[in-house]
Amino acid sequence: MKILFEHADILLTEENGFSELKNAYLGINNKTIDYIGTEKPTARYDEVRDYSGKLLMPGLINTHCHAAMVMLRGLGSDLTLQEWLFDKMMPVEDRFTKETIYAASELALLEMISTGTTSFSDMYFLNEATALACIEAGIKANISRPIQSFDPADKYETLIRKLEADKLFAEFNGAADGRILIDDSIHAEYTCREDLVKAHCLTAKERGTRMHIHLSETKMEHDACIQKFGKTPARWFADLGTFDLPAFAAHCVWVSDEDIALLAEKGVSAVHNPSSNLKLGSGFAPIIKMLKAGVNVTLGTDGAASNNNLNMFEEMHIASIIHKGFMMDPTVVKCNDTLRMATINGAKLQGRPDTGALKVGNCADIIAIDMDKPHLFPNNDTVSLLCYSAQGSDVYMTMVNGKILYENGEYLTIDREKAMFDAKKAAKELLGK
Amino acid sequence: MKILFEHADILLTEENGFSELKNAYLGINNKTIDYIGTEKPTARYDEVRDYSGKLLMPGLINTHCHAAMVMLRGLGSDLTLQEWLFDKMMPVEDRFTKETIYAASELALLEMISTGTTSFSDMYFLNEATALACIEAGIKANISRPIQSFDPADKYETLIRKLEADKLFAEFNGAADGRILIDDSIHAEYTCREDLVKAHCLTAKERGTRMHIHLSETKMEHDACIQKFGKTPARWFADLGTFDLPAFAAHCVWVSDEDIALLAEKGVSAVHNPSSNLKLGSGFAPIIKMLKAGVNVTLGTDGAASNNNLNMFEEMHIASIIHKGFMMDPTVVKCNDTLRMATINGAKLQGRPDTGALKVGNCADIIAIDMDKPHLFPNNDTVSLLCYSAQGSDVYMTMVNGKILYENGEYLTIDREKAMFDAKKAAKELLGK
Repeated sequence: MKILFEHADILLTEENGFSELKNAYLGINNKTIDYIGTEKPTARYDEVRDYSGKLLMPGLINTHCHAAMVMLRGLGSDLTLQEWLFDKMMPVEDRFTKETIYAASELALLEMISTGTTSFSDMYFLNEATALACIEAGIKANISRPIQSFDPADKYETLIRKLEADKLFAEFNGAADGRILIDDSIHAEYTCREDLVKAHCLTAKERGTRMHIHLSETKMEHDACIQKFGKTPARWFADLGTFDLPAFAAHCVWVSDEDIALLAEKGVSAVHNPSSNLKLGSGFAPIIKMLKAGVNVTLGTDGAASNNNLNMFEEMHIASIIHKGFMMDPTVVKCNDTLRMATINGAKLQGRPDTGALKVGNCADIIAIDMDKPHLFPNNDTVSLLCYSAQGSDVYMTMVNGKILYENGEYLTIDREKAMFDAKKAAKELLGK
Repeated sequence: MKILFEHADILLTEENGFSELKNAYLGINNKTIDYIGTEKPTARYDEVRDYSGKLLMPGLINTHCHAAMVMLRGLGSDLTLQEWLFDKMMPVEDRFTKETIYAASELALLEMISTGTTSFSDMYFLNEATALACIEAGIKANISRPIQSFDPADKYETLIRKLEADKLFAEFNGAADGRILIDDSIHAEYTCREDLVKAHCLTAKERGTRMHIHLSETKMEHDACIQKFGKTPARWFADLGTFDLPAFAAHCVWVSDEDIALLAEKGVSAVHNPSSNLKLGSGFAPIIKMLKAGVNVTLGTDGAASNNNLNMFEEMHIASIIHKGFMMDPTVVKCNDTLRMATINGAKLQGRPDTGALKVGNCADIIAIDMDKPHLFPNNDTVSLLCYSAQGSDVYMTMVNGKILYENGEYLTIDREKAMFDAKKAAKELLGK
């Protein structure tokens, strides 16, 4: 299928920022962008779509998420972290089944696709069901099943989790024409043992996966690690070989200056999760230092239980403003930086170099913004509008690998009514309502 | 006109929080709510509207705004405060005319009305044009023309501004059946002289207006006042009689503990403007302390030039999460607090005691949220959903004084196309594009 968008504005990713083509053409051949320009292409296209008043831009990449946690949205708001986690989250999570994870994942995908996410990195359990939902929905996802062991004596649970991760990799890595990639994952320093980390890093090295971890999310976690091991969580992971893999670390709120240098040196990507870090009272990640040190900083929503959305426009907005307030400097974390975190930096983290930017030869992972909105006028600066003013609901169209998943309020790959029905059924099972 | 909403969920404001009626009825007689209950009322209504799946809640009240500044949206993002203000804002503001202020105000109203604002407090110049736009659009507004004098020697400019404020009051106070109220305003300590403040407070006392001021927005302003007068801006205003009026102060980022006690004692409302305070690098207002001290804390967007929206759902969300992160405590500034700031506390500030809550006898200033959205499911807690998950675009209907201004994406009192056309014309005049 060859599709041509005409009369669209097109946001191009440059070396250090973005540029814009006005009233331009973008052609797609099957799953690849084959033309971008202000002249009408000479090649024939099967379908020509007038996208006047729309801005085409790269799809957003949510690099740290627990998709199925949408079922826990709004549960235990405004409680302490302990009460929220142990009294509210875990009892419901214990009731999850493959069926409810599938329904929850579909609910998550409805939100993600309609707000412009074309790929996400998921860390959760039973998420072969999430992989299946993504295959159906047409979105891209890097999915991981974390290794963890709360009980140092427990060998059985650890083995089960390892086998599950192996099975996930064997069954789904590269599925749906490469849309699904399986990452490996170690939940966090405070939830794992050294021998397990070492062993799992060897596995990841063998199969060439990326390693998805939580890192220094809370001060307590960071300080307790120093207390226990005489080193920070980042140094602990590095010493166990984790950072010799293509690794990425969610949160990084309490990383030290030395940790930041280590992440930069080892090429570890840092996922910024501002909403979750604020809502759970974790603090402000040192994004400015990380950007300066050359760390590949990306953006993620975390789960909807601590966000409480999976909306990357909201995340870009919040990431763009909070550091200015915290540092009392309106010039830091510029909107250009944030939009790169949410697009091309995310593509790098996911090991998908042919995504994250609109250019000929790249995958057609594209979203269109309806710019004919009162809150998007006047356009004094497109990137500023996208970060500070645009809403997830301004997304008019979402396309992955050249296939339109959502356009003008309609889902083309998910049966919205059935998905909502299934989500309600799952909520009844999980929450008793 | 008597309208009955049936099968709606209804959010009721209680002494210390909110409660919800499920599948209930809300009746309106002309501009007043005349029935709320789960039983079908026996009275006859001219029009019955099935609002299944919708949540009726009080309209949002934006208590600090410069509506016409939407024209400067996105201009000078990520610059220092000085560059932003002097190089980007003021040159455009100098070109404003009544016509362009009208067009800008209409553009602002399109955004406000569609995102659930039913009343706002505006501080700007030439805003008789804003009053006219509000009269046409059907929204409520407290409008003020600030007294200010940058030049201590200048008597002429001061006199002009005073006369303008007088004229605004004479022409518009109580207009459109009380929808328009004229407040008085002193721009700020750093932009005014003591003699002017005293004189204008006397005027306000005579005509019984509220006094709208900027207070301790930046550290520089706060510290410079102490340097100059040996007291804080709050104490300076109090000593000049401002706080003997029903006053309200925007920002309050740097108010001291003594200032907070003073605001509480004098019944001065504090407007929290979190997005603007973050984006301009001003800092974090001590909302938690103010709430504890019993200050009437309300919520405002500030102008779209420093926000960059006029979207109160966004503002509620940001207000609800940033203090948790800043204080590293997820239990502070609960969603109940934030929703009260945006509704009933705002009504108190505006001197509109018959608004801000849904109850029989109150004005029918109501919005409906379409709860059939993937990101609003499951509903584990309605107030939490409204603060942490809901988007401005979830507003299905906006009603002021019993008149529907917006429903299901359609504006009923503003000609959207004409307003956008006029906004484009104004932008061309102001911005040259």
